[in-house]
Amino acid sequence: MKPLKLMNYAEGQWFGASGGLSDVLSAIDGQVVAQTGSQGLNFKAMTDYARKVGGPALRAMTFHERARMVKSLAEAIMARKEELYELSSQTGATRVDGWIDIEGGAGTLFAYSSRGRRELPNDRILVDGPPEILSKAGGFVGQHVFTPLQGVAVHINAFNFPVWGMLEKLGPTLIAGVPAIVKPASATAYLTEACFRIMVEAGVLPDGALQLIVGQTGDLLDHLTCQDVVSFTGSAQTAAKLQGHPVIARESVRFIAERDSLNATVLGPDCTPEAPEFDLFIKEVVREMTVKAGQKCTAIRRAFVPATLLDAAEAALKARLAKVKVGDPRVQGVTMGALVSQAQRRDVREKVAELAREARIVFGDPDTVEVTGASADDGAFLSPILLRCDDPWKGQAVHDVEAFGPVSTLMPYTDLQDAVALCNRGQGSLVMSLFTYDPAVASQVVLGSGAFHGRLLIVDRDCAKESTGHGSPLPNLIHGGPGRAGGGEEMGGVRGILHYMQRTALQGSPRMLTGVSHRWIANAPEQTDPPHPFRLRFGELEIGKSLHTQARTITLEDIEHFAEFTGDTFYAHMDEEAAAANPFFPGRVAHGYLILSFAAGLFVDPAPGPVLANYGLDNLRFLKPVSPGDAIKVRLTAKSKSQRNEEYGEVRWDVLVTNQDGETVAAYDLLTMNAI
Amino acid sequence: MKPLKLMNYAEGQWFGASGGLSDVLSAIDGQVVAQTGSQGLNFKAMTDYARKVGGPALRAMTFHERARMVKSLAEAIMARKEELYELSSQTGATRVDGWIDIEGGAGTLFAYSSRGRRELPNDRILVDGPPEILSKAGGFVGQHVFTPLQGVAVHINAFNFPVWGMLEKLGPTLIAGVPAIVKPASATAYLTEACFRIMVEAGVLPDGALQLIVGQTGDLLDHLTCQDVVSFTGSAQTAAKLQGHPVIARESVRFIAERDSLNATVLGPDCTPEAPEFDLFIKEVVREMTVKAGQKCTAIRRAFVPATLLDAAEAALKARLAKVKVGDPRVQGVTMGALVSQAQRRDVREKVAELAREARIVFGDPDTVEVTGASADDGAFLSPILLRCDDPWKGQAVHDVEAFGPVSTLMPYTDLQDAVALCNRGQGSLVMSLFTYDPAVASQVVLGSGAFHGRLLIVDRDCAKESTGHGSPLPNLIHGGPGRAGGGEEMGGVRGILHYMQRTALQGSPRMLTGVSHRWIANAPEQTDPPHPFRLRFGELEIGKSLHTQARTITLEDIEHFAEFTGDTFYAHMDEEAAAANPFFPGRVAHGYLILSFAAGLFVDPAPGPVLANYGLDNLRFLKPVSPGDAIKVRLTAKSKSQRNEEYGEVRWDVLVTNQDGETVAAYDLLTMNAI
Repeated sequence: MKPLKLMNYAEGQWFGASGGLSDVLSAIDGQVVAQTGSQGLNFKAMTDYARKVGGPALRAMTFHERARMVKSLAEAIMARKEELYELSSQTGATRVDGWIDIEGGAGTLFAYSSRGRRELPNDRILVDGPPEILSKAGGFVGQHVFTPLQGVAVHINAFNFPVWGMLEKLGPTLIAGVPAIVKPASATAYLTEACFRIMVEAGVLPDGALQLIVGQTGDLLDHLTCQDVVSFTGSAQTAAKLQGHPVIARESVRFIAERDSLNATVLGPDCTPEAPEFDLFIKEVVREMTVKAGQKCTAIRRAFVPATLLDAAEAALKARLAKVKVGDPRVQGVTMGALVSQAQRRDVREKVAELAREARIVFGDPDTVEVTGASADDGAFLSPILLRCDDPWKGQAVHDVEAFGPVSTLMPYTDLQDAVALCNRGQGSLVMSLFTYDPAVASQVVLGSGAFHGRLLIVDRDCAKESTGHGSPLPNLIHGGPGRAGGGEEMGGVRGILHYMQRTALQGSPRMLTGVSHRWIANAPEQTDPPHPFRLRFGELEIGKSLHTQARTITLEDIEHFAEFTGDTFYAHMDEEAAAANPFFPGRVAHGYLILSFAAGLFVDPAPGPVLANYGLDNLRFLKPVSPGDAIKVRLTAKSKSQRNEEYGEVRWDVLVTNQDGETVAAYDLLTMNAI
Repeated sequence: MKPLKLMNYAEGQWFGASGGLSDVLSAIDGQVVAQTGSQGLNFKAMTDYARKVGGPALRAMTFHERARMVKSLAEAIMARKEELYELSSQTGATRVDGWIDIEGGAGTLFAYSSRGRRELPNDRILVDGPPEILSKAGGFVGQHVFTPLQGVAVHINAFNFPVWGMLEKLGPTLIAGVPAIVKPASATAYLTEACFRIMVEAGVLPDGALQLIVGQTGDLLDHLTCQDVVSFTGSAQTAAKLQGHPVIARESVRFIAERDSLNATVLGPDCTPEAPEFDLFIKEVVREMTVKAGQKCTAIRRAFVPATLLDAAEAALKARLAKVKVGDPRVQGVTMGALVSQAQRRDVREKVAELAREARIVFGDPDTVEVTGASADDGAFLSPILLRCDDPWKGQAVHDVEAFGPVSTLMPYTDLQDAVALCNRGQGSLVMSLFTYDPAVASQVVLGSGAFHGRLLIVDRDCAKESTGHGSPLPNLIHGGPGRAGGGEEMGGVRGILHYMQRTALQGSPRMLTGVSHRWIANAPEQTDPPHPFRLRFGELEIGKSLHTQARTITLEDIEHFAEFTGDTFYAHMDEEAAAANPFFPGRVAHGYLILSFAAGLFVDPAPGPVLANYGLDNLRFLKPVSPGDAIKVRLTAKSKSQRNEEYGEVRWDVLVTNQDGETVAAYDLLTMNAI
């Protein structure tokens, strides 16, 4: 095929480099697939464009609008996914590898879109946590909020997941309301560019929301400010170089790094070769070595087994590795494709040589491999390589040198404490896994090793079939890890969105903070004029609209009747003497649910109207018991609103139930669905 | 007084420097107050001691135990506070300044202790967010947890708050379960050392929990790893130097910086000189200039007013500044003390000279000041200095050069958008304030400027009396800010504790993650054998203990009776036709509170026993309507426990109400208080 000339996308225009192109070679046959470069780009102008055009446009949208936009991007990618699969095989990826990258990437956008609409308000400001009462009288309060950063996110991605790697960062960034500049790794930039083009052609992005650099980033970093984010995925060496750029410290530019790490897996001390977890362990190690030809920053590099099982584990791994079929990923029956490039293969061979000084190769040969459907010389093929290191406390490279290919080292441990200490010698990783059926073992490992890992997968017979595996980051869980893994954190649901927003502690009067946060805060003004709040449609209802009900006296007969009717004859309601002996009650008291029910009886407006349903209740606390003869009344105040669709929206009501002395009996948030 | 020889506290021993002592001079009279140095300390051994002795001891305690320890430290400081006030005046601080530092510091410990016991479990692991369902069948789930970092926190503090600055970091660190090494600024190290000594002598800290360096930190940073945290407060220059240390990027050491910044205040466009907010603004600017002689990283450096009010504001500020009385803080009537040192005064004078190239001094003289009760030459006294810059868009130094003393610059703006843009020219700050009575103004400022500030105080006539002021960080609000302010975040309640813990995403079977997290996850095993769960005392009750009730059919008569009894005659319960017209209901349905009440009737065990009270309910969602004739039943499962005191503890129950078809009707968490 004719080499593709890759294009940058800057300031809303496609732009071909003015010179200095580099060839990108096929992983399969070494032919030129693409030419790429960024010469002639004005990087400062790109950051300005993102800040002045893209940012304001994104910030004008609500979280829900941005989430819907992200969904449209995902749909556009899925509609044209076969174009991407075709290019994907040139990177050495099998169809399964490509699925993780392409459909996994689109799936991440879908997940973020759905999360954004479900968990964030249909608003431009995000309230974080409850109000903080800052003065005794309650006239001075605090409220944390998040607003979008007013800069640009620079995403510098790795070669191994050219689609997913871009999308897992873009989903959270765009939903946060921040424009991005994407810089893919050259070796697979042609696949990223193709996916990027699909997104631009989807026609749903505001101008300036996304830009693409398919070559060097020039002086880009020099132009970053306190409102910008650099999110990097790749080697520890490049990460340290980027992080050391003077502008990062000077301007406190947010820097998120996700670096390769020496991820470990442990076969629990409770697992004999007969235990189901033994087989699961063997399968997972081999899977992690061969998926994507081991080019995953989450792949298992270190496999620890009880010393007594070292030989058994080695034998089982070798038997399974012998079934791996290396070759052109487009050929039927091939289970492992190529490394991304000859250069990558050279690098892996060098690293294997380093490891082989401390460990011996027990499976595979770095220099020879049988290849199906392609030439071992032209393509970047490599055999899976298993090393064995019998004294992991003597070894250093085995805990420190990452061969970014189908390479793992098998090592023994003496007891669980030893296994934990060995895992931690990786000095921080993205993920570790543990195969055990014993929660006590898992507990010890989490307390001993959790702080060294961003993700910790515990596999047993109960979850193995449903497990997504050691190597798979998921949009709802954080991805990233301490130390060697870069100290960054991505995804994890809404957590990932917040990396692109600024948390600010607001302080002021309840009235003022209610006006800013769009959430009513106790002691802010209320509007108590007619009509009844339940008579107002979603759009008409203003935050602070309130109802103060009449009082209702609760009698002993009410309590007895309620007990009999519901069957809740708990002694605190029924037996004066026993109730009085309870540390919390003065004598017989009303049921909590009686209070709730009577409260509803006091505030509900019975006729059909905009309030469609009571769909729930949050943060209910019974703060003072209600004795027979006490009279309760209710304050119901519209606290916040979030439109859900064209027909209805959610309303959160602040409800306070007080007694005849003005003391709070119960407080809660009531949730209703209201017609638009 | 005879100079104090300050001591380091290393590896559980007091240690005087072996040489290389520096003199620390009084701010008031220039006499030597103390001699300080750290020569001879083994910094590597100190980090090892923290990690091997202090860390394990702290991690063996629960959050509540650590919180109680922190309370004891605060009590010990309060009991001996007068010793600290005496030293405090030598730093130039007035009694009010000292109160902020000393009692404000102890207050922060008290606040953290109370927060830790109220909001964290009495456990060693902290669950973060709800479980994430990772497979369709629900047999594979995720759960984020926090565990303490297994390293050491290095706290490098500023001179201005020698007590508070240490304690606001130690509170969160110790509650997280992480040992600390404290390094105070030399100029006021004698006060920090005295407070540190009080804490050690309180006898409540485990060995290795705290260490102190009263001089240079030598090669300390070289020994840091991925489990350590550096938390720095001070100048941007020193922060950048520390952050650039190669170990920080290489090991991804967590680095939290809180740097001086060009904090701004804005008098809203709605405020005339007659508005109460005008006076409040004038008072606050002067207060921030003079408290602590303006040596606060949160002080107002830039004051923006509507251009039309520039002269009026200048006149009012000058009139108020004229009342400031500078002198020995121990002398009656003195309202502003000294800068910390002659060196500091020289620095401020230099910075004022820089500012004076763009702005003119309209109050005060950097070289002359009338001093009460002390010598202007011997002590580090300085007049408050107000500058005025008529063209803030031409100015650069006014937005960038911080004179860390009683110095502010008054500037005009044209409209609110201009004011926002000018504030943001500070490129990130710890705090800004806004004086307005108009929530629309506040809203525009928060959306326009929030992302540049860690805290944003909005002052109006309603909250002014209760306001804690522009310059006061509070334990329940985050302290820190983007960009120039360092990009760090401290305090903010539990948020501040999490900076010293690692978040890890656990994956596995519900059974396994329940065992690790101590919180029951749906689909984990249940124990349904007798007795009824309500018959078990707190200590006997195991997570997963369950009750499955009989079913109860809800009749139309039940619904009508409940409506009549409670007064809740909402049409969805009463009118078949109207109910059927509602998009959510098939026809008349049961009240949500009827379902809750009958559910309680099904699961409650009436006789006196360990369950003392139902104290609340969380996350209730009504998921499917209940029609007349439907039969509901309940599963009640012990979800988590947290001991509150010697007598009782909180139990959270997972409650699921299902119908005759096994569909979920309602789900919620029930909270009870159980006897130990």
